[in-house]
Amino acid sequence: MNNVDTGRTIEQLETPCLLLDQSCMMRNVTRLKRRLEALGVPLRPHLKTSKSVDVAKRIVDSLTGAATVSTLREAEEFGSAGIGDLLYAVGITPNKLDRVAAIRARGTNLSVIVDSLETAEAVAAKALATRDRIPTLIEVDSDGHRAGIRADEVQRLVEVGRALHDGGAELRGILTHAGRSYECRTTAEIEAFAEKERVAAVRSANVLRDAGLPAPIVSIGSTPTALFVKNLQGVTEVRAGTFTFFDLFMSGLGVCTLDDIALSVLTTVVSHQRQTGRIVVDAGWMALSRDRATARQPVDQGYGLVCDVLGRPYKDLLVIETNQEQGILAIRAGSSATLPELPVGSLIRILPNHACATSSQHRQYNVVETDSDQVLDRWPIFRGW
Amino acid sequence: MNNVDTGRTIEQLETPCLLLDQSCMMRNVTRLKRRLEALGVPLRPHLKTSKSVDVAKRIVDSLTGAATVSTLREAEEFGSAGIGDLLYAVGITPNKLDRVAAIRARGTNLSVIVDSLETAEAVAAKALATRDRIPTLIEVDSDGHRAGIRADEVQRLVEVGRALHDGGAELRGILTHAGRSYECRTTAEIEAFAEKERVAAVRSANVLRDAGLPAPIVSIGSTPTALFVKNLQGVTEVRAGTFTFFDLFMSGLGVCTLDDIALSVLTTVVSHQRQTGRIVVDAGWMALSRDRATARQPVDQGYGLVCDVLGRPYKDLLVIETNQEQGILAIRAGSSATLPELPVGSLIRILPNHACATSSQHRQYNVVETDSDQVLDRWPIFRGW
Repeated sequence: MNNVDTGRTIEQLETPCLLLDQSCMMRNVTRLKRRLEALGVPLRPHLKTSKSVDVAKRIVDSLTGAATVSTLREAEEFGSAGIGDLLYAVGITPNKLDRVAAIRARGTNLSVIVDSLETAEAVAAKALATRDRIPTLIEVDSDGHRAGIRADEVQRLVEVGRALHDGGAELRGILTHAGRSYECRTTAEIEAFAEKERVAAVRSANVLRDAGLPAPIVSIGSTPTALFVKNLQGVTEVRAGTFTFFDLFMSGLGVCTLDDIALSVLTTVVSHQRQTGRIVVDAGWMALSRDRATARQPVDQGYGLVCDVLGRPYKDLLVIETNQEQGILAIRAGSSATLPELPVGSLIRILPNHACATSSQHRQYNVVETDSDQVLDRWPIFRGW
Repeated sequence: MNNVDTGRTIEQLETPCLLLDQSCMMRNVTRLKRRLEALGVPLRPHLKTSKSVDVAKRIVDSLTGAATVSTLREAEEFGSAGIGDLLYAVGITPNKLDRVAAIRARGTNLSVIVDSLETAEAVAAKALATRDRIPTLIEVDSDGHRAGIRADEVQRLVEVGRALHDGGAELRGILTHAGRSYECRTTAEIEAFAEKERVAAVRSANVLRDAGLPAPIVSIGSTPTALFVKNLQGVTEVRAGTFTFFDLFMSGLGVCTLDDIALSVLTTVVSHQRQTGRIVVDAGWMALSRDRATARQPVDQGYGLVCDVLGRPYKDLLVIETNQEQGILAIRAGSSATLPELPVGSLIRILPNHACATSSQHRQYNVVETDSDQVLDRWPIFRGW
């Protein structure tokens, strides 16, 4: 779908639709890659944020082809596009192993993660049955956030490791994700979290090694910790996804600025009710997503922060409410800002709470450049499992 | 895609995926149709809830082909499938009028709604330019909920009516949607709301008629008010969508029972952490949606209520937290219920907060019957604008 929109402008797009600022995205990606290069550890970018082959080709290292996925459909789509080294970073279930085997049989080096003995045994059984030593990492819970074996459950860790290694699978090492880093309030807290994540993963890998088991990979990461980590000793790769586009939640965390947010929803003013100070637009929760991540932060950004058509934020203008296909804009409660003119038909952009949630509501990115109204390209977004 | 799954069972599906209980859906539809028939007013079902041609063919009256849509893509998809009389019940914007004209030119009788003079003039101009008197309703705000002209803004109503009628469009009447009925706490409140909705719409139609303007259509509706309305005098059609599938929010409102919910998400247990009383499943917010409508109700159902594989609810077992591709189950805080066994690999169903939000996260319905594990069919879901 390259260059189908040459000569088209943002004003010619039908709303609601997604805009992606390509240079902004590439700046975000370069920043994190350089940071991790300085620490001597490669990035394994998470492709769930974009679900786009066009984005993936721009951010994945073409030599290693190393990336992270959150669904087997992502593994299929990105694998078919030639991204050869994919880590499926969501606990595998036994009923997905046939599909894992099929993806691997087509030449994608897909690895999986487990956190229970039952699943480890199922993976090992499938490895034996298919004569393919499915590479498998053990998920460790570094912050009580979600799935994973706790780093102090030494015996369980070794049991699962043995079930994989002795059972015929390829035990590749340890994975963890410090999801609770999203709840930090300061960069010092994020740094401390990053260290906690590292220690949990490295210790767990050493538990396996001390038991005579292999653990070549120690995989950690989340956008906040990847951007603030100081020490990666013992870590072999870092995963992060949201950094590709950034969003209001990451801006509220202090991980990026509003200028770093590459993704926005273009919408049209449907009606302007001056007497009540409300503006109705044609982007509701279907276009913005229901994600209200910033509601948990000191500054609640509603369903999104409103910018002009070129992406410059209006002071304190938020999407305060949504229904399925409409959003209601108003000035933030307590603010002295005034409602901009914005007559019916005006185009505006809305910065999202959570990039992964908003992008997945759409079928394509309309690719733009900072401070320009030219639409350069259209990149399809896929979905489903 | 008919009968592709003949002989398949729920146990053979890959998770997460959507299950739709066909008989349950048909009972819901028959119930509302009979109710409205008794009141002498036809239903114009809202197809945004399903976004499925297969569902639409089963619930739309085949003689009138009257239905409601929330996007022009829905108008295109359902129009192509032969549903001939479609009301696009979201305020039209000037930049969508070319597409409206194209849909109408292909033979779909698509009507639109406006709530401002600017848009009415744009519709009239397009009607003149295309020599097609685009049928248009005026949206009235019956509850301060969203877009629409207030019923007491008599002068504005007449101005907009004249701009349409005198400008060359077909003024078809009045539309309103009592969105705030979702905030009612008792059926008596819903009944009162339904009457308020009716009165606002009928009065507004009479304002137009008194000014010598046509207003043959008076269109009202929402799932709660449609199910509890007692008096439809002066109303010519009722719109409702969620009633097709129902959901936990409607159950919390007292509009349906848990048994009436036709939609659920099938998911697999990924890990069972008995020591912490948490179960991890492979349905996160991508499969369930981020919609947390029941958080505003007396009984908060988390991200969904958990049922066994045949749809029978476990006592007080909720999805208490989600990330993108995983959900965390736990017993409701304060409940004395105990966590069911549910070993790794077990299949369960999750009833959704909001049917429209959950269905739109998926690409197809797996059609099932009450109390059976047979998968009868697969119906595609489309999306986008």
